[in-house]
Amino acid sequence: MSSKPRRGFASDNNAGIHPKVLEAIADANAGHVIAYGDDPYTEAAVKLFRQHFGKDVEVYFVFGGTGANVLGLKAATEPHHAIICADTAHINVDECGAPERFTGCKLLSLPTKAGKITVDQILPFLDAVGFEHHVQPRVISISQATEMGTVYQPRELKQLSAFAHKNGMLLHMDGARIANAAVSLKATLSAITREVGVDVLSFGGAKNGMMYGEAVIFFDRSLAKDFKYTRKQGTHLPSKMRFVSAQFSALLSNDLWRVNAAHANSMAKLLAQELAKIPLVEISQQVESNGVFAIIPKKYIAKLQKLSFFYTWNEQISEVRFMTSFDTTAEDINDFVALIKRTLS
Amino acid sequence: MSSKPRRGFASDNNAGIHPKVLEAIADANAGHVIAYGDDPYTEAAVKLFRQHFGKDVEVYFVFGGTGANVLGLKAATEPHHAIICADTAHINVDECGAPERFTGCKLLSLPTKAGKITVDQILPFLDAVGFEHHVQPRVISISQATEMGTVYQPRELKQLSAFAHKNGMLLHMDGARIANAAVSLKATLSAITREVGVDVLSFGGAKNGMMYGEAVIFFDRSLAKDFKYTRKQGTHLPSKMRFVSAQFSALLSNDLWRVNAAHANSMAKLLAQELAKIPLVEISQQVESNGVFAIIPKKYIAKLQKLSFFYTWNEQISEVRFMTSFDTTAEDINDFVALIKRTLS
Amino acid sequence: MSSKPRRGFASDNNAGIHPKVLEAIADANAGHVIAYGDDPYTEAAVKLFRQHFGKDVEVYFVFGGTGANVLGLKAATEPHHAIICADTAHINVDECGAPERFTGCKLLSLPTKAGKITVDQILPFLDAVGFEHHVQPRVISISQATEMGTVYQPRELKQLSAFAHKNGMLLHMDGARIANAAVSLKATLSAITREVGVDVLSFGGAKNGMMYGEAVIFFDRSLAKDFKYTRKQGTHLPSKMRFVSAQFSALLSNDLWRVNAAHANSMAKLLAQELAKIPLVEISQQVESNGVFAIIPKKYIAKLQKLSFFYTWNEQISEVRFMTSFDTTAEDINDFVALIKRTLS
Amino acid sequence: MSSKPRRGFASDNNAGIHPKVLEAIADANAGHVIAYGDDPYTEAAVKLFRQHFGKDVEVYFVFGGTGANVLGLKAATEPHHAIICADTAHINVDECGAPERFTGCKLLSLPTKAGKITVDQILPFLDAVGFEHHVQPRVISISQATEMGTVYQPRELKQLSAFAHKNGMLLHMDGARIANAAVSLKATLSAITREVGVDVLSFGGAKNGMMYGEAVIFFDRSLAKDFKYTRKQGTHLPSKMRFVSAQFSALLSNDLWRVNAAHANSMAKLLAQELAKIPLVEISQQVESNGVFAIIPKKYIAKLQKLSFFYTWNEQISEVRFMTSFDTTAEDINDFVALIKRTLS
Repeated sequence: MSSKPRRGFASDNNAGIHPKVLEAIADANAGHVIAYGDDPYTEAAVKLFRQHFGKDVEVYFVFGGTGANVLGLKAATEPHHAIICADTAHINVDECGAPERFTGCKLLSLPTKAGKITVDQILPFLDAVGFEHHVQPRVISISQATEMGTVYQPRELKQLSAFAHKNGMLLHMDGARIANAAVSLKATLSAITREVGVDVLSFGGAKNGMMYGEAVIFFDRSLAKDFKYTRKQGTHLPSKMRFVSAQFSALLSNDLWRVNAAHANSMAKLLAQELAKIPLVEISQQVESNGVFAIIPKKYIAKLQKLSFFYTWNEQISEVRFMTSFDTTAEDINDFVALIKRTLS
Repeated sequence: MSSKPRRGFASDNNAGIHPKVLEAIADANAGHVIAYGDDPYTEAAVKLFRQHFGKDVEVYFVFGGTGANVLGLKAATEPHHAIICADTAHINVDECGAPERFTGCKLLSLPTKAGKITVDQILPFLDAVGFEHHVQPRVISISQATEMGTVYQPRELKQLSAFAHKNGMLLHMDGARIANAAVSLKATLSAITREVGVDVLSFGGAKNGMMYGEAVIFFDRSLAKDFKYTRKQGTHLPSKMRFVSAQFSALLSNDLWRVNAAHANSMAKLLAQELAKIPLVEISQQVESNGVFAIIPKKYIAKLQKLSFFYTWNEQISEVRFMTSFDTTAEDINDFVALIKRTLS
Repeated sequence: MSSKPRRGFASDNNAGIHPKVLEAIADANAGHVIAYGDDPYTEAAVKLFRQHFGKDVEVYFVFGGTGANVLGLKAATEPHHAIICADTAHINVDECGAPERFTGCKLLSLPTKAGKITVDQILPFLDAVGFEHHVQPRVISISQATEMGTVYQPRELKQLSAFAHKNGMLLHMDGARIANAAVSLKATLSAITREVGVDVLSFGGAKNGMMYGEAVIFFDRSLAKDFKYTRKQGTHLPSKMRFVSAQFSALLSNDLWRVNAAHANSMAKLLAQELAKIPLVEISQQVESNGVFAIIPKKYIAKLQKLSFFYTWNEQISEVRFMTSFDTTAEDINDFVALIKRTLS
Repeated sequence: MSSKPRRGFASDNNAGIHPKVLEAIADANAGHVIAYGDDPYTEAAVKLFRQHFGKDVEVYFVFGGTGANVLGLKAATEPHHAIICADTAHINVDECGAPERFTGCKLLSLPTKAGKITVDQILPFLDAVGFEHHVQPRVISISQATEMGTVYQPRELKQLSAFAHKNGMLLHMDGARIANAAVSLKATLSAITREVGVDVLSFGGAKNGMMYGEAVIFFDRSLAKDFKYTRKQGTHLPSKMRFVSAQFSALLSNDLWRVNAAHANSMAKLLAQELAKIPLVEISQQVESNGVFAIIPKKYIAKLQKLSFFYTWNEQISEVRFMTSFDTTAEDINDFVALIKRTLS
């Protein structure tokens, strides 16, 4: 009889903690262990990351996603460098200028159709190389999955990394939704990161069932040389580290990362499928991960948001964004779609 | 029959989560709420802070203690300012230069006997006022309780704040162990912060039973004007904010903050009392909160550390530091003292 | 008989010192005066600036133009702010990221036809106001004359400042070529800065006959409150200040600023007029100050550059830039035009 | 008949331009040359520096001394590093926190008797090496001559550089008065920099007869890898570079650097000798370069300063500082000493 969804579609950050993650936290809550990461929980979590990504990767846990991006980028740059990204990138629009503030670098942003940038777009920036008046291109930063819910194909990633490395640059990946991308591509985590040439990865936890915590993973280990200091000076060394570590261990064990992401992705597919049936709604982006973008007549949007909050993405074209998460249910979708139908009719 | 303590004395950060805090996290884990702080859990926690500190204080939650200090200081300074502190201050020695890096300010540190600085020591810095070649004194930053386990008396705090305000300066308090100080002084939280003229406070959670989370509290509200941006750009806006908030609500309800701190303080007293009986051990600081400093003959230290880890504080005088926490038991102390006795005999 | 110009057209920075400026330096070279600006030469120069701009303006001298821009912008911003500018702006492309590095701000750049930005383009940035995830628009920065040799009309400047002030923003002007703009508009220096609502001005010296030196002028005096510290910490407080001051006094006396700029502008007109007669050359921008932009068939450019160096501005459309300066002669232009004719025929 | 000195003793920055330097500026003022350093004057000046310091040194000109120090230190550090210096160091007290602001590093300052630091004092900082909570010692920065007018002996410099290099650190020298030091030690410029293990040198011009301009010299060339970008982003790339270069060429030719410094030093000796004869004046530092420190009864100081300005160095012990310069005359000294005698009697 409920007509209001129990869980909304505003953001995968609005979801809570996956029960197995919370259980892992409780299990780790026994006795004293050394703070700041020199503890068995952290050792175990790093080991799991290495099982996924390779024995020689460097893994550092931080509190959150903006911290992970900013510190990972700092490790890859000098202040006179430029970081190239999509104009929709989280680092470009949703971090209140933290990347510029902390790295000193300029961000060079590129317009995109679906959140994905290409080598052709980056090429002209090479004209600046060697001229002291201009910032020097150093990092290509991409989001996987993108902020538009799309996913880079492995071949696209390889093109970007090959171009980067050929020109003395590095490939940084904001993997706040890396699990959703891997599931979408039916790939391992390594296959769409290390194996396609990514140098630094922000590995997201919170959007996939964790309470907090993000990992910065260096495939190019030389970049990690001083990272323990960068993390501490960057205010992102958790004192009770074991609880970040225990969460990651839960996520990386028994395929929980995959199960959660697969569920969210499938719910997005279902939502898109149902929305597509509504005459006044137009799906505006490929649904490749856990985001659904749709164009809805402007006059209904505020009313809908009051009934069940979500974000307007592009005011000008009346495009809105719906996100699913690990705990979205088919019933949530049915309720939400019914609510939209009622409101639009 | 156990001869090794179940819980160590290395750091209050080595303790886990208080059961009521963990319970509060679990209780908050229901359905979706808006991320980034616009949720009922955060509203409730802020309300509790205002019950403790006054209706008009501004309260912002961040991930951790270094972040709280650095961002609070940033809100109080311009880069050409100086921050005056004890040379033992956490901001001076234990934050890998984060305050300088993020605020741009110089730290002017003062030698102390017991971690406490005085107006007399600060006075000469006023000579620089108005001269463009010199950094301009702007903030006096103190730790309460101090890193030496001592506690500023309310009258000492009033002297510092009066001096600061008279000279166009502000008083910042690193309250990582503010609860221990309040208990030690038999005072309310407000009585040793707001009521004695503190302008900005880092209110600690992790060292008093929380998993993570710290609050920046502005008594001078004008300093908070842009703080929501400073926090986000400072990479310290938690996405799933409700879980920080729920922890603080647990800590500030039913006197849990006081119970935890009182227990830790009393355990420190007990430990000091027992240690004082050992002929070769000399208590080297007043025991006013949850830290015990002692001088132990150098030759025994490494051996003891192997048996139950703790930190050497001052290599030169063979001074070590023991910290108690909310979960320290009398049995832990008995075991630890016995271990020391055995080792030293 | 000479076929090579005595003075080139690559940059007004390639010119030397105007004889009267050099004379002023020599005249100031007598005995000792207090360093760092507390000297009669500086007092006199500031007085002259106030005669031009009003009694209550704040005037600070710095070493160079990038320093002037960066420090003026710092005085007008907090790190979470955004600075809006043309994508051709000097601060955006020719200062190696110094504005981001020193202010912490993000630069939001806009595409332009002729180096000039409009209120309509800036309007969408207001959507971000109040949202902590996004940088907050704070400064509109324009170049007068622009990097494309065009000039903002007073009415255009008024529109920008009115929009800025209405929305809690400030108008910054990079006046590296402010004299050329004033001459072009037949206006006083004040008429196109203070009187149209500019808040902070970088007043250029080097491109108009000085050896080095730039002034940061605050029409909104509250912005200058801490600027003496910002300048010193910003490494731009000249020790032997009198020699910067003496140069400015020379420039601002006897209309030297105007004479120099008027000459450079008229030489640009002449150059454009002569170039326009060459069949294969197309003038590509309005010639409103001392810059001439032209499209020349690609195949001739490198050869021409070898004979008399100048910069390619836009590789893609084969557009080059010629700058005239206070010391350009009609003979220089005749020689240069002849050289182009010979090369292109 | 004059009783007031023509030139004061407040600062070597209060002196003007040496006639030969001014002449070199005028000589360089012919026609156009490429801006920003790609010109024959700069080529010639760099060549002269290489004749003095070795063929393989990297030489970069900047506007001023604080810029030189800050950018040289930036080239040698990461933000989590510490820079160790005397508490009297210019970088520590006279640059308004610019080193912290621009490098992000913490400065660790040491008390000294005569402005000189020793290996023994630095040793304890090594305890922090490898611990992420602490800034990492990276640079030892010394002033030669020191701010107290004393001079490091070559053997002292060798001890510092050997210690630095053995511990993965670098030796930075603030050589604002390097010429005075070389003259004092009867050494070549190379003998007290490169040959004793200095890695980065700020080579001062303004205090030895130049109008403005300082050089950053890298003996460890790897540090200069990105310096052209650091200098530009650091706002210290002069546009009309030729005029900095021409000044340095004058200074480094015909021993002008040595003649000027030798004269200033000898005048300091004379001043000290004459002051020592005055009963109430006590010379308080060794006079090894162009600074004379003296203790004068407090009650006379303000009166003297009004008659001929100089700076109080240490209020507490009533110590004042007198500086001589390239243009100080014996008559200046006679007049000044007479004035002091009259005032004190």
